[in-house]
Amino acid sequence: MVERVRVAVLGVTGVVGQRFVQLLSNHPWFEIAYLAASEASAGKRYFEAVEWVVEGPLPQPVGDMVLGPPDPNAIPRDVEVVFSALPSGVAAGIEVELAKRGFTVVSNASPMRLDGDVPLVNPEVNWEHLRLVEVQRKRRGWRGCIIKNPNCTTAILTLSLKPLVDAFGLRRVIVTTLQAVSGAGLRGVPSMAVIDNVIPYIEGEEEKVRRESRKILGRLAGEGVEEYPVEISATTTRVPVLDGHLESVHVELREPAGVEEAAEVMAGFRSKPQELGLPTAPEKPIVVRREPDRPQPRLDRLEGGGMSVVVGRLEEAPELGRGWLKYVVLGHNAVRGAAGAAVLIAELYLKLEGLV
Amino acid sequence: MVERVRVAVLGVTGVVGQRFVQLLSNHPWFEIAYLAASEASAGKRYFEAVEWVVEGPLPQPVGDMVLGPPDPNAIPRDVEVVFSALPSGVAAGIEVELAKRGFTVVSNASPMRLDGDVPLVNPEVNWEHLRLVEVQRKRRGWRGCIIKNPNCTTAILTLSLKPLVDAFGLRRVIVTTLQAVSGAGLRGVPSMAVIDNVIPYIEGEEEKVRRESRKILGRLAGEGVEEYPVEISATTTRVPVLDGHLESVHVELREPAGVEEAAEVMAGFRSKPQELGLPTAPEKPIVVRREPDRPQPRLDRLEGGGMSVVVGRLEEAPELGRGWLKYVVLGHNAVRGAAGAAVLIAELYLKLEGLV
Amino acid sequence: MVERVRVAVLGVTGVVGQRFVQLLSNHPWFEIAYLAASEASAGKRYFEAVEWVVEGPLPQPVGDMVLGPPDPNAIPRDVEVVFSALPSGVAAGIEVELAKRGFTVVSNASPMRLDGDVPLVNPEVNWEHLRLVEVQRKRRGWRGCIIKNPNCTTAILTLSLKPLVDAFGLRRVIVTTLQAVSGAGLRGVPSMAVIDNVIPYIEGEEEKVRRESRKILGRLAGEGVEEYPVEISATTTRVPVLDGHLESVHVELREPAGVEEAAEVMAGFRSKPQELGLPTAPEKPIVVRREPDRPQPRLDRLEGGGMSVVVGRLEEAPELGRGWLKYVVLGHNAVRGAAGAAVLIAELYLKLEGLV
Amino acid sequence: MVERVRVAVLGVTGVVGQRFVQLLSNHPWFEIAYLAASEASAGKRYFEAVEWVVEGPLPQPVGDMVLGPPDPNAIPRDVEVVFSALPSGVAAGIEVELAKRGFTVVSNASPMRLDGDVPLVNPEVNWEHLRLVEVQRKRRGWRGCIIKNPNCTTAILTLSLKPLVDAFGLRRVIVTTLQAVSGAGLRGVPSMAVIDNVIPYIEGEEEKVRRESRKILGRLAGEGVEEYPVEISATTTRVPVLDGHLESVHVELREPAGVEEAAEVMAGFRSKPQELGLPTAPEKPIVVRREPDRPQPRLDRLEGGGMSVVVGRLEEAPELGRGWLKYVVLGHNAVRGAAGAAVLIAELYLKLEGLV
Repeated sequence: MVERVRVAVLGVTGVVGQRFVQLLSNHPWFEIAYLAASEASAGKRYFEAVEWVVEGPLPQPVGDMVLGPPDPNAIPRDVEVVFSALPSGVAAGIEVELAKRGFTVVSNASPMRLDGDVPLVNPEVNWEHLRLVEVQRKRRGWRGCIIKNPNCTTAILTLSLKPLVDAFGLRRVIVTTLQAVSGAGLRGVPSMAVIDNVIPYIEGEEEKVRRESRKILGRLAGEGVEEYPVEISATTTRVPVLDGHLESVHVELREPAGVEEAAEVMAGFRSKPQELGLPTAPEKPIVVRREPDRPQPRLDRLEGGGMSVVVGRLEEAPELGRGWLKYVVLGHNAVRGAAGAAVLIAELYLKLEGLV
Repeated sequence: MVERVRVAVLGVTGVVGQRFVQLLSNHPWFEIAYLAASEASAGKRYFEAVEWVVEGPLPQPVGDMVLGPPDPNAIPRDVEVVFSALPSGVAAGIEVELAKRGFTVVSNASPMRLDGDVPLVNPEVNWEHLRLVEVQRKRRGWRGCIIKNPNCTTAILTLSLKPLVDAFGLRRVIVTTLQAVSGAGLRGVPSMAVIDNVIPYIEGEEEKVRRESRKILGRLAGEGVEEYPVEISATTTRVPVLDGHLESVHVELREPAGVEEAAEVMAGFRSKPQELGLPTAPEKPIVVRREPDRPQPRLDRLEGGGMSVVVGRLEEAPELGRGWLKYVVLGHNAVRGAAGAAVLIAELYLKLEGLV
Repeated sequence: MVERVRVAVLGVTGVVGQRFVQLLSNHPWFEIAYLAASEASAGKRYFEAVEWVVEGPLPQPVGDMVLGPPDPNAIPRDVEVVFSALPSGVAAGIEVELAKRGFTVVSNASPMRLDGDVPLVNPEVNWEHLRLVEVQRKRRGWRGCIIKNPNCTTAILTLSLKPLVDAFGLRRVIVTTLQAVSGAGLRGVPSMAVIDNVIPYIEGEEEKVRRESRKILGRLAGEGVEEYPVEISATTTRVPVLDGHLESVHVELREPAGVEEAAEVMAGFRSKPQELGLPTAPEKPIVVRREPDRPQPRLDRLEGGGMSVVVGRLEEAPELGRGWLKYVVLGHNAVRGAAGAAVLIAELYLKLEGLV
Repeated sequence: MVERVRVAVLGVTGVVGQRFVQLLSNHPWFEIAYLAASEASAGKRYFEAVEWVVEGPLPQPVGDMVLGPPDPNAIPRDVEVVFSALPSGVAAGIEVELAKRGFTVVSNASPMRLDGDVPLVNPEVNWEHLRLVEVQRKRRGWRGCIIKNPNCTTAILTLSLKPLVDAFGLRRVIVTTLQAVSGAGLRGVPSMAVIDNVIPYIEGEEEKVRRESRKILGRLAGEGVEEYPVEISATTTRVPVLDGHLESVHVELREPAGVEEAAEVMAGFRSKPQELGLPTAPEKPIVVRREPDRPQPRLDRLEGGGMSVVVGRLEEAPELGRGWLKYVVLGHNAVRGAAGAAVLIAELYLKLEGLV
C-alpha cells in the first residue's frame, strides 16, 4: 500500500483512547491525522494531556501531536475514519454530525448500539452485519456512517460463543464476570473501593451483555438483524485487576457436545478477518488452554496482542442436564473489548469496500 | 453456668486455628485448656509460634499458653471438646484416635466428611444430623465422636439455600465463587499469583461444593442421610481479597417464587441455634441487603460477628425459564465457613445432649 | 457526668468525617447534635448519604440522623464543640464564622494551621499550646475559637519524636513515608493508579511535615510559638494500603543515645491526656515493638484504638555519625492523624477549662 | 558474528531464571545450550516445569527444551558461560566446581560477593573490576572464573550514585526502599502478608546494600578493591508491587551541587557498555524525569528494557546542610537488579577479552 488512510481519534486520553493510540501508532495502513480529547485539553500536546497507563512507552511522534477539540468542524477533510472513544453523554451528537459529513465513524460509545440500522460488530463473529451500513445511509441520508463495537464483556463472551452457536446451537447462557478496573475508565474505581475487596455490581452491564449478545449472534434478515434466540443471564462484578475480564460461563447447547468437540470448534475457529489477513486480526481468535488454572488475567490478557480470547476449564456439566458445558474465558477489555475491535472493524470495512 | 467446659484446639497457628482462638477466648461456656500446632512448635508460647492475622490483638492470656504436641496422649483428660483445624494429611488419624478415647471432636478437616455415619453439620441448616453421632458410636464402638463442619464455600452456599429448599424446593444450582486468599491458608497463595490477577481454579473445591451440599441439605433417613436431589455445578476462583467468599448464584426453584417471597424467607430464616440462644448463633443467619452494590467482602464479612451470610442482588431470571432466581451471597470463610461453624456445632451438641 | 456536651460534625461523609462519627457515637462525654456534609446532601439521612468504609457497622442511632447544611446559622445554639472535616477550600470561611459566634471549633482542615495565634495541637506532644486560644480571642475578638489538629503524617511523626526531643534534643530528621490511600479521601486515589504500583509524590505533604512539625515541637513564648530548631527533610509516597501511614525515620540527636535509652523514653512516654485519663487518650501513646518485621499497617493500625503509634526497627546508625538513630513508625492516619487527635483535643480543652 | 556463544542457565524456573531465559532467547550473541532447575525437575520440558510470570509469552523453542540437573558434570563442554540463578544455599559449591572446570560463571547468588578476588560488577559502574578475574584465577588456580552481579537494591542504587561520585564525591547516603515482591522469589511473599499491607523488613538486605555498595563504588588497587568511603544507612521495606524497586535517597555530596548539575551528570552518564554498543546495554543508563509523580514501578520498570534506572523528584535539601540532595530512583529488580546485569557482564567480559 502506498498511501495511508488518514484517521482521527476522539477521546484519546482515556483507557480506550490510549489503546487506540497504541494500536494505530505503527499501523501498516493507518496514519493518525487528528487527535482530540475534551475541549479543556485542546491545544496541549498529547504527552502533556495524557496519563499514559498502557504497558510500554507512549509512542512517538504521536506523543508530540497537539490535541484538537472534539468538534466535527475541526477534523481535516482528508480523514476517512474517525475512531470514537467519547463518553456516552456526548458521543451520539458528535458521531451523528460526523456521519452526516461523510466520515466513517467506528465507535466504542454505547449509545445507538441497539438501533436497527446500526451495525454492532465483533469482527470474527458477525462481520456480515457491516452490510447494514447501506440501510443506515439510505434511511438516514448520510454520506458517512456509524459502526459500533460491542460492550467489552459482550465482545469477549460472544467471540467464545460463536463457534458453539455455529456447531451446536445455543439455548441458554449463564455467566458471572470478574471485570478489570480499567473497564470503568482511568478514575472510575477508587482504590478504597477495591483494595481487599470485590464489588458485585456494574451499572447497566448485565442488560448490555444480554441485549448486545443477541444482536451480535443474530443474522441479517431484510433490512435488519434477527436476534439469535439465546437466553442469557449475567451477573457482573468488579475485581482488583488492571486489565482483562474473566468470565465464568455455563452454556446449554441445542445439540449436546462433549468437551473435545467443543474445544475443537473453539480452537479451530477462524473467520473473515483471518481469511483476509487483516493487520489487527489475531491468528487464533480463540486460544484453548488445558492447564487447570488458566486463563489468568495478568498472564493471558495480551494473547494475540490482546485480540484473542483465552478459554480454559472447559468441562461438561452433565448434572445440569443434556447439553450443558462450562468454561471460563478471558479477554483484554480495552483491546478485544474496545479499541482493538474497532480498529479491526475499520480494517474489515475498508477491505470489503475495496478502499484499501 | 458455673463450670466451664474445657476444650482443646489442634492446628492453632493457621488461619482457622487463629479464628478458633478468637472465638473461644472470651466464650461464655468454654475454657481453652490445651493448644497444639505442629510437633515443631510444641514447647513455644502461642504468641511466639503464631503469625497473628486476625483483626484485633492476639487475646490474652491465651497468647502466653505453651503449645503442646498434636498428640492424643497429651490432651488433658478433663477436656470435653477437641476442635481440630489440622491439615488434611494428618487429621483423620489423630481425630479417630481422639474419638476412641472419648473426646467429642469437632473438625474442620475435610477427610471423612462424606462418611455415612459422620454428621456434616452447618448448624442452622441441618442440626438434626447430629443424631448420626449415635449411629457413629454404635458402628465404630467409640466412646467419643467426630462431627465435621462443611467446606467454607459450601457452608456459605447451603445457608443461603436452606430457606429456598424449605419454601420452594430446589432443582438446579449454578454457582461461580470469588474466594479469599485466607481460604488457602497463611501461605497458600503467593502474592505474585494474585496481585493484579485472578486464578480460576481451586483444587478439589468444586466437587466438595457439589457433594457436601447434597448431604447437608439432605434428610436423616434410617441410619444415614438421604441426599437432597439438587443438581449443582460450581466454578471456583481465587481473588485478591483477604477474607470473605463471594458467590454468584443462579437457582432453579421447584415451585417458582418472586423476589419478594424469596427475600422474605431468607431474611426471616431462623433455626435451632437462634431458638436456643446459643452464644455463637447470629441473630439473623441471613441478612438480605437491597443496595445494588452489596454485599462486598471487606464491608460485610464481619456481619453477625462473621456468622451471618449476606445476600444481595436478588433478582428473578425469567429468561432462563420459570423458577429461576439469581443472587450473590457473601460469608466469612474462616468464621461461618470454618471455626465459627465448628464452635456453634459444639454449643448445639452440648445443649441438645443436656451437657450445658 | 450528668449532662453531655453537645457537638456538631461538619464534613461527615468523608474518610475523616466517618471516623468522627465512629469516635463520637458512644463517647462518654459527647452527644452528636448536628451533622452536615455538603449542601447537596442536606436533608438526607446519614446512612443514605455516606459510603461507610470504617471497620464495623455504621453506628445507630446516628445513622438515621438527618444531615443539615454546612451553614453556621443552622447549627443549634446549644452545641459547644464543632468538629470540622470540611474540605480545605471551604473550611476557613465557615470555621471563622463559627468561632465568631462562640463555638469551639476543632478542625482537621489545613488552612490557618500555621497562623501564629492558632493552636496546632497533637495532644500528648504540645497540649500547652492550647493556651494560644486566649491570644486568639483577644486578637480576633472572637467569643469562640479555632484549634487545629496536625496533618496526618505530621501527627504520627511528632508523637514519635517528642520523647526524643525531651530527652536528647533533635538536630536533623530524614523521613520517607509510605502512606495509605485513605489519606487522600474516599475517591482520592484511583485504583488504576495504585494496583501493582506506588506513587512517590503527595502534593504539598512534604512542606506540611516540615513546617507543622517545627511548630508542634516548639514552645510557647510570649504570645506565640517559638519553632523547635530541627531540620526535617521528607519524601512522601502513596502505597496500596487502606489505612495506616508507615514512616521510615532517621534522626540525629543532639545528645547521642543508644537503642535501649531511646526505646525506654519512647515506650515510657506519657503526657497530660494520660494523666487526666481522657476517654480517647491511649494508655500507651507509643508502643515499641521488638520483632524485626513490625509495625505493619494492617496488623498494627488499630493499636490503642488507632490512637497509639507503633515504633519498630529501632537501631543505631553509627555509620552516619554520632547521635544517629533509625526506626519506623506507624499510625492510623484517620484516627491519630485526624479525627482521633481532634476528639482528644476537645476532651483536653474542655477538661483544662473546667467545662467537664 | 558467525558463531554463537553457547551458554547454560542454572536455576531457570525462578523469577531471575525466567528473566535470564527472556533476555537470552533472542540474544544476538548467545545461544542457550543447557537449562537446569532443581534435581526434581530434571527431565521435564521447561514449559512444564516453569510457572512463567514474565510479561509476554514463554519464548520458543526454549520452552520445549528438556531440563538437565544442576550438576557441573552434566553441562556440555562447549558451553562458555554459565549463568547462575541458583539459591544461596547450593550456589557456592556448584559455582566453584564450574569455575574449576573452566566455565565462566556469572552469578546472581549472594555468596562470595564480598570475597576480595571476586569481581562484584554493576557494568556501567565498575566494569574495571572485571580485571580481578586474573587475580582470582591466579590465587585459586581455576581455569574458569566467577563473576557476581550485585544484590538488586544495590544495583539500582549504585547506578544512580555513580555519576555523583565521579562529579562531586559522596559522603553519606540515607535510603529507604519500597521493594517488589518478586525480589523474594515466586513464593517468597504470601498474599496474606501484603494485601492492604507493607512489611518494613527484608532479612539481610540492609547490610548487603551497605557493604556491596562500598565495594562496587570502590577502585581497583593492587590485587583488590579499595572500598569507597561512603557511609550508607538503609531501611528496606516490601510493598505490594510485582516488579520494580523504588528507593527514596538522601545524599550528602562532598562538593555541593545544585539540582541542575546533578540532573545533568545523571542524565548524561554513559560508560563502557554504551561505548562498546553491547546488546543489553541501555542507551541511557539513567533516565531523569521531571514530572513530580514519577518514577512509578508499574509505569517505568521496563525503561530501557528494564536495564535503565529512572530518577525523579531530584531536589536540594538545604535544611540538612550543604551538599544534601534528595531523589527517588526506580529500577527493575529482576533485570537491572539481577539477570540483565549478569547478561551485560557476560557481554562485557567476552568483548573485553576479545572472545566475541
